[in-house]
Amino acid sequence: MTVEERPTDHASVANTMTGEDSPELRRLHEDFEAEHLIPLWTQLGDLMPMSPAPRARPHVWRWSTLHPLAARAGELVPVGRGGERRAIALANPGLAGHAYATPTLWAAIQYLGPRETAPEHRHSQNAFRFVVEGEGVWTVVNGDPVRMSRGDFLLTPGWHFHGHHNETDRPMAWLDGLDIPFSHHTDVGFFEFGSDRVTDYATPNYSRGERLWCHPGLRPLTGLADTVSSPIAAYRWEHTDRALTEQLLLEEEGQPATVEQGHAAVRYVNPTTGGDVMPTIRAEFHRLRPGARTATRREVGSSVFQVFDGRGLVVLDGVEHTVEKGDLFVVPSWVPWWVGAEGGTPLDLFRFSDAPVMERLGFARTHVEGLEGPEGPGGPQGNEGDER
Amino acid sequence: MTVEERPTDHASVANTMTGEDSPELRRLHEDFEAEHLIPLWTQLGDLMPMSPAPRARPHVWRWSTLHPLAARAGELVPVGRGGERRAIALANPGLAGHAYATPTLWAAIQYLGPRETAPEHRHSQNAFRFVVEGEGVWTVVNGDPVRMSRGDFLLTPGWHFHGHHNETDRPMAWLDGLDIPFSHHTDVGFFEFGSDRVTDYATPNYSRGERLWCHPGLRPLTGLADTVSSPIAAYRWEHTDRALTEQLLLEEEGQPATVEQGHAAVRYVNPTTGGDVMPTIRAEFHRLRPGARTATRREVGSSVFQVFDGRGLVVLDGVEHTVEKGDLFVVPSWVPWWVGAEGGTPLDLFRFSDAPVMERLGFARTHVEGLEGPEGPGGPQGNEGDER
Amino acid sequence: MTVEERPTDHASVANTMTGEDSPELRRLHEDFEAEHLIPLWTQLGDLMPMSPAPRARPHVWRWSTLHPLAARAGELVPVGRGGERRAIALANPGLAGHAYATPTLWAAIQYLGPRETAPEHRHSQNAFRFVVEGEGVWTVVNGDPVRMSRGDFLLTPGWHFHGHHNETDRPMAWLDGLDIPFSHHTDVGFFEFGSDRVTDYATPNYSRGERLWCHPGLRPLTGLADTVSSPIAAYRWEHTDRALTEQLLLEEEGQPATVEQGHAAVRYVNPTTGGDVMPTIRAEFHRLRPGARTATRREVGSSVFQVFDGRGLVVLDGVEHTVEKGDLFVVPSWVPWWVGAEGGTPLDLFRFSDAPVMERLGFARTHVEGLEGPEGPGGPQGNEGDER
Amino acid sequence: MTVEERPTDHASVANTMTGEDSPELRRLHEDFEAEHLIPLWTQLGDLMPMSPAPRARPHVWRWSTLHPLAARAGELVPVGRGGERRAIALANPGLAGHAYATPTLWAAIQYLGPRETAPEHRHSQNAFRFVVEGEGVWTVVNGDPVRMSRGDFLLTPGWHFHGHHNETDRPMAWLDGLDIPFSHHTDVGFFEFGSDRVTDYATPNYSRGERLWCHPGLRPLTGLADTVSSPIAAYRWEHTDRALTEQLLLEEEGQPATVEQGHAAVRYVNPTTGGDVMPTIRAEFHRLRPGARTATRREVGSSVFQVFDGRGLVVLDGVEHTVEKGDLFVVPSWVPWWVGAEGGTPLDLFRFSDAPVMERLGFARTHVEGLEGPEGPGGPQGNEGDER
Repeated sequence: MTVEERPTDHASVANTMTGEDSPELRRLHEDFEAEHLIPLWTQLGDLMPMSPAPRARPHVWRWSTLHPLAARAGELVPVGRGGERRAIALANPGLAGHAYATPTLWAAIQYLGPRETAPEHRHSQNAFRFVVEGEGVWTVVNGDPVRMSRGDFLLTPGWHFHGHHNETDRPMAWLDGLDIPFSHHTDVGFFEFGSDRVTDYATPNYSRGERLWCHPGLRPLTGLADTVSSPIAAYRWEHTDRALTEQLLLEEEGQPATVEQGHAAVRYVNPTTGGDVMPTIRAEFHRLRPGARTATRREVGSSVFQVFDGRGLVVLDGVEHTVEKGDLFVVPSWVPWWVGAEGGTPLDLFRFSDAPVMERLGFARTHVEGLEGPEGPGGPQGNEGDER
Repeated sequence: MTVEERPTDHASVANTMTGEDSPELRRLHEDFEAEHLIPLWTQLGDLMPMSPAPRARPHVWRWSTLHPLAARAGELVPVGRGGERRAIALANPGLAGHAYATPTLWAAIQYLGPRETAPEHRHSQNAFRFVVEGEGVWTVVNGDPVRMSRGDFLLTPGWHFHGHHNETDRPMAWLDGLDIPFSHHTDVGFFEFGSDRVTDYATPNYSRGERLWCHPGLRPLTGLADTVSSPIAAYRWEHTDRALTEQLLLEEEGQPATVEQGHAAVRYVNPTTGGDVMPTIRAEFHRLRPGARTATRREVGSSVFQVFDGRGLVVLDGVEHTVEKGDLFVVPSWVPWWVGAEGGTPLDLFRFSDAPVMERLGFARTHVEGLEGPEGPGGPQGNEGDER
Repeated sequence: MTVEERPTDHASVANTMTGEDSPELRRLHEDFEAEHLIPLWTQLGDLMPMSPAPRARPHVWRWSTLHPLAARAGELVPVGRGGERRAIALANPGLAGHAYATPTLWAAIQYLGPRETAPEHRHSQNAFRFVVEGEGVWTVVNGDPVRMSRGDFLLTPGWHFHGHHNETDRPMAWLDGLDIPFSHHTDVGFFEFGSDRVTDYATPNYSRGERLWCHPGLRPLTGLADTVSSPIAAYRWEHTDRALTEQLLLEEEGQPATVEQGHAAVRYVNPTTGGDVMPTIRAEFHRLRPGARTATRREVGSSVFQVFDGRGLVVLDGVEHTVEKGDLFVVPSWVPWWVGAEGGTPLDLFRFSDAPVMERLGFARTHVEGLEGPEGPGGPQGNEGDER
Repeated sequence: MTVEERPTDHASVANTMTGEDSPELRRLHEDFEAEHLIPLWTQLGDLMPMSPAPRARPHVWRWSTLHPLAARAGELVPVGRGGERRAIALANPGLAGHAYATPTLWAAIQYLGPRETAPEHRHSQNAFRFVVEGEGVWTVVNGDPVRMSRGDFLLTPGWHFHGHHNETDRPMAWLDGLDIPFSHHTDVGFFEFGSDRVTDYATPNYSRGERLWCHPGLRPLTGLADTVSSPIAAYRWEHTDRALTEQLLLEEEGQPATVEQGHAAVRYVNPTTGGDVMPTIRAEFHRLRPGARTATRREVGSSVFQVFDGRGLVVLDGVEHTVEKGDLFVVPSWVPWWVGAEGGTPLDLFRFSDAPVMERLGFARTHVEGLEGPEGPGGPQGNEGDER
C-alpha cells in the first residue's frame, strides 16, 4: 500500500480524537497559548506527514521572461554598496512572499551592466554562479580574478570576499545559486562589507586557483590541507563538455560510462576530498542524447535546474513542460520528475541541489520508478537499520 | 568595531539606493511579482544580516507551570492512534504560531497517564527523551524495552519504531526533543504507523542495547559496522552523575578535567564513532559547583536547556532569570548567554542543540567573551581560509 | 581449484624459463650483483606467492614453562636503566633468531620482582600489557599511575612515557605486546629515556584516564579532539567479563548478540573514534561456552592469543594443541585455525593482532570455512573492484 | 643534545647490566633458546634505537649502467608465463641479498623487447610504472589498454589484472614501483595468473579510465563510490608538466604556489578522495629551477627518486652525488637529504615513497633543518600528545 492510498492520515484522526471541542479543552488550549505552548495533537499531520509534503511547488521560469525583466532592472536600479547586487530571485509560488526557490536554495538572475562593478563583500552563505550566455565579466574571489564565460560554473564559498566587474560595453546576466533560505532559517549567517571596488581589475584567462588546481589527478604540495569547499574558482565549460562527450562515446563503445542509456552526467567536486564543492550545495551537469529520457525519480531534498542547451520535456509531478535554453525549473522534495531530450539535439542541463545537507544529516533517500526494493514506493526505508 | 556599532546596515542603504519610488520601478516590481520573482535589493538586510539575527527569542518556561498544564491535558486528551502522543511543545514567542522551540529544535513535555500506552510508530525525525523526574514508563525502541527513570537520556533515532507504556498507577512526564522544525522546513520526513500497542511489555532494568553496548571501551564483535546514530538506547543517570563527580574531584586534585573552573561537562556520544548521538542533535550534561559560573558565550546554532537539579542564574542577552528544577530555557543563535549556580548546591543542567548540523555544514562558530582573536567580536571569521 | 592444487607454481616455472644456465646469463647475473641489482625471475615465487606463505609458524608456548624461566631471570638479571625491562620475548621458530612472535608483533613475558621499579622511557612503538594473573604493580603512563590486576588490558600508546613499580613483596609477571617487529622492519622508531624512577608512586584504584573516560557513551568536554590512540589507560576485567556475560545471556534469550553460537567477543576500542585502541594493534577478548567452537578461519595478518581461563583445543593448520591458562599461541597470516572450549568450563581468550595495519592499508581478507562466495578459497578477491 | 651525542646508548648499557656472563645466566639463555624465547636485554639497542637506524643505505644507481644491463637481459631472458616480467630490481646494499630498494619499496627496471607481450596476472601488491624515456608499449589494466609514454605515471593497484605489449620494433624500458618488500614482510600477498596474452590489443591514445576521470574537478556520476586506489590509469606528462610550469609562473608573479623558493611540486592523487593514489605508495613530481635547492630534510619512511630531466646535486647523509636523467637514488628512513638543480636547466624529479603507510599508522615525522620546534632534532615528538 503506498502512502497515498492510506484511507486516513493521522492529522484527521488526531482531530477526531481530541473529540468534541469541550469548554475544558478550549480553556486548556487557551492556557497553552498564554504560556507559549502548542499541543502536538493539533499539529501532527502537518508537522510529520507520511512522506515529504513540501509547500514549495514545482515551477518553471522562462529565460525569455526573466532576461528582459533583468534588463529593465539594469536601467532602473543601480548596483553598488548597500544593495550590493542587482539580483532577481526566483520566488517559489508555494512559499508565499519569500525570495526562495526552495526551502533551502536561492536562485537568482544577476545582471551587470556595461562597465559596472558590484562591490566586494563576504558572507557565511555559500554561493556559485553559472553562466548560460555571455562573457566579459570577471568575478574577484579573495583577490583572485576569475573570468566568467558561457558554460562556466564559478564558486564563491562561504566567507570568501567577492565582487564582480564588467569589462565590456554589453550587459551580462547569469544564474546565482546560494544557500540563503537554509542559512536564514537556521540563523547562521555573518556578513561583512569589503572594498567598494574590486581589489584586482586584471582580466586573466585563468584564475590562480585554476592554475594551481585544474590538473587532473594532481594536487599541489602547497595545498595538502583539505578544505571544506573546493579551491577551484572556475569549472570551465571546455572540461565539462569534454567529459560528457567522452561518456557518450564510451557508451557507444559498449562501456559502462553513463548513468542510464543516453544520459551522461558529471558532478562538480572539491579536489581535496572528492566530495561536493561546498558543504550545502551539490552541482551537476547532465546531457541527454536526442530522444533519451531519465527514469522517474523522487528524492529527499530540493533541486533547481537550468537548461543550458537543446530542448527538453520536463515532467514534474505529472505535469508536462517544454523547456529551452535558459529556462529554470524547481523540483521540491519527493516530487516525481523526469526529463527527456526533445528535437534532434542533445539536452544539456545544469542542476544544483541541497543533497549534501541531506546526506550529511542522514536524511537522503531516492526512489527510482521501476526499481523496487529498499527504496520502493511502498516503504521508504532509507535510514532503516541506520547503517552507513 | 563590532557589528552593532556600524553606523548603517546594508538594508537601509539598499532602500535608499533604489531611490525615489518611481512609477517605472513600481511597475517593474509588479512585473516581478507576477512572474514569481523578488529582487534582492528589497530583501538583503533581512536575508543576510551582519550577524545572525534570529526571530526566535530567548525564553524561559517554568516546570511549575508546564507540569500542571500537562496534567490537565492528561485528564482531557486521550493518547492513542492518530494523535499518537500527549505532548505539549514549547512555542518560541518569536516564531509566532509555530510549535518550535527554535528554528531547528522541538522540545515538548510528554505526559503519560497511569497504565496508558502510546502506540508504536516511526519517523525520519530524530528523537530523544530526558527524564527530569519520575519513573515507571518503558519506551520500546525497535522492539527493545527501555526503562525510563530520573536522569536518564533515551534515544529514538530516525526511523526506529517506538511506543511507550506506563506500568504504574501514577502519571509520568518527561522532556521530548526532536529535530521536527528542521525536518519540516527542509521537507525530509517520512512517517509510518506501527503496532497500536507496544510490541513487548517486558520491564527489564536494562535494555538489550545497553547490555550490548554500555561497557566502557568495549565494542561487541556483532556491532562492528558504524551506525549514523548511537546504538545505546539509554544513557543512565548513574553514569552521567559519576562522570561529572569524577571531573570535579580531578579538578580538586589539580588535574585538567573541567571545561572551566568549577564546570564539569559530558557529551552523550555514539560509541561506534565517538561523535554525536544523532546526526542533527547534540546532547550534553553540565554541572556547576556552588558559586561557579560559565563564561559568556555566543554560538551559531540554537540550544534548549533543562535544569535537572539545583538553582541557577541564567543570563540571556543580558536579561537575568532565576531557574530551578524542570525549568527550560532556549538560547537562539548567536545570543550571548551565561549560567551560574546559585544557592549552596551544584547546578545540574541538561542541554541539547543543533550543533551537529552547524558543524557538518561548516557554519559552526563560537565566541567566548574575554577570548579575543579569531573568534573575537570584531570579526567573526570561523570559516575564513576554509580549512578544517 | 585451491591454491595448493596448482600443478606448478610460478617460481619453478620461472627457474625453468631462464633455461640452461648459460655462461652469458651467469655473467649477466654477476654483473647484476656487482651493481646491486637482482632480477625478478629468480625471485618471483618466493616474493609473490599464490597466497600468503609466511615464514612464521604456528606455535604454542606454555605458561608452565614460561613463568619459571621468567622467575629465574628475576633472580639473575637486574631491571633498570639501560636494559630497561626484564622481558622475555616469544621467538617464532620460523623467524630464526629474531625476537618476533610474528613479522609484525612482539609478545613477551615481563617479570617485575618485589619492590622493583622499571624506569620510565618512551618510544614510537605502541605497547600494551595484559595481566593473566597477579596484582600489585602500577604502571605510570605519562604521569598517570595505573593499577594492574588480573584480566586488565593496559595501554601505552606510542611516545607515552611509562615505567612500572611493584608495591608488593611478591613478583608479578604479565604479557607485553608491541609492534616492535613492524616498527623495526620499517625503521620508524624513536626512543627517549625518562626518569630513572617512576614520576608518581601513588597507587590509586583507578587512573585519571579511566576516571575521565570510562563512563559508557559519555565523553568529557575537555576531550573533544580525537586521538590516534585510546585515552583509556586500563580496560578493567570487571567490564570485559560483564560484557561477555551479557552477550551469552542475550544469546540464551534468543537475541543476536554473539559472533557465532556460544561465542561471545568484544573488541577494545578508542572511545574518541570507535576504532582500534592503537593504529597498529587490535585487541579482543573471546569467550566460548563449554563445548562451543569457532568456525575455521584464515585471515590476512597475524595474531597472538593467550588463554585467560578454561581449557581449549586449538587447531592450527590442522595440528591440534590443548591449551590452558596462560598458554600463548601464534597464528601467522592465512593459516587456518579454530578453537574450542574443552572440559566443563568456558574458554576465555585474549587476542591481539596487526589487523589495523591490514585494514588501513587495504590488505585485509578473511576466509571462513563453509562460507563460500567472494572470500571462498578458490579465489581470494578481497580487494577486487577495490571499493570500500 | 642530539641523539648522536648521547655518551652511551641503551644497548651497551644493557650488555653491561647483565653483568659478568655467569654460568647461571648462560644456562638461562640456553633454556630460553630451547623454548623459542629471546630476552629483551640482549636486543634492545638494535630493536629500539634512539632514532631510526635503517640497515638500508642511501645509494645511487646510474641509468647509464642499468639500461645496458636491462638490454642484455632482453637478449638472454625470455618474458612470459612463469617468469612473468623481465624486471631487474634495485637491491639496497644494506639489505644484503634482498631485491629491496628499501624495507618497504621495490624499484625495478622493466624491459620489454620489440613486439613482446608480458602476460596478464594480478596480485595484492600495489604497482605503478613511471616512464623516463621511450614509448610504444600499452599496459592493459583490468581490460583497459593504457598507452605508456615518456613522463607518464601509470597505476596498477592491488588485484587489478595487468599485462603489457610492445607495439613497436624498438625495446622499451621503464621504472616499476611496488610495495613488494612490505607485502612480503607482512605476508599479505595473493597472486593469480590471467591470460597468457593481453586481453585487448587496442592502442588508443587515452585509456577509458582517463576518459572518465581526467577532467579537472569533475566526477562521473557512475563513479560516486570511493575506491581505495585511484581509478585513473595514467597520469600524463602533459598535465604534470603544465602544473609545475604554472606553479613557477605563479611564484614569479609573487603568489604562494611553490613548496619553497624555486621548488614546484605535485602529488599524484586518487580523485575519489583527494588522497594518495594507492594505500601504500605516495608518488610526487618535483621541479627545481636552475640554481634552486631544497631544504635539508629527514623523514620517517623511505623514498626512491628518479631523475627525469636536468642535472642535479644530491646530498644523502652528507655525501654528494651528481645525478642526471634516469638515475635513481634511495633515501632510507630519517636519513638527511637535499637536492639542488645543477647547470642551467631545471631539475625534474619523480619520487615515490611509503609515506601513506607512515601516516595511516601514526608514525610520520618530518624534520626540516632550520625549522626548530616540535620537529627539531633535539626531540622528535611527532606523536606526542597523540592528537591528529
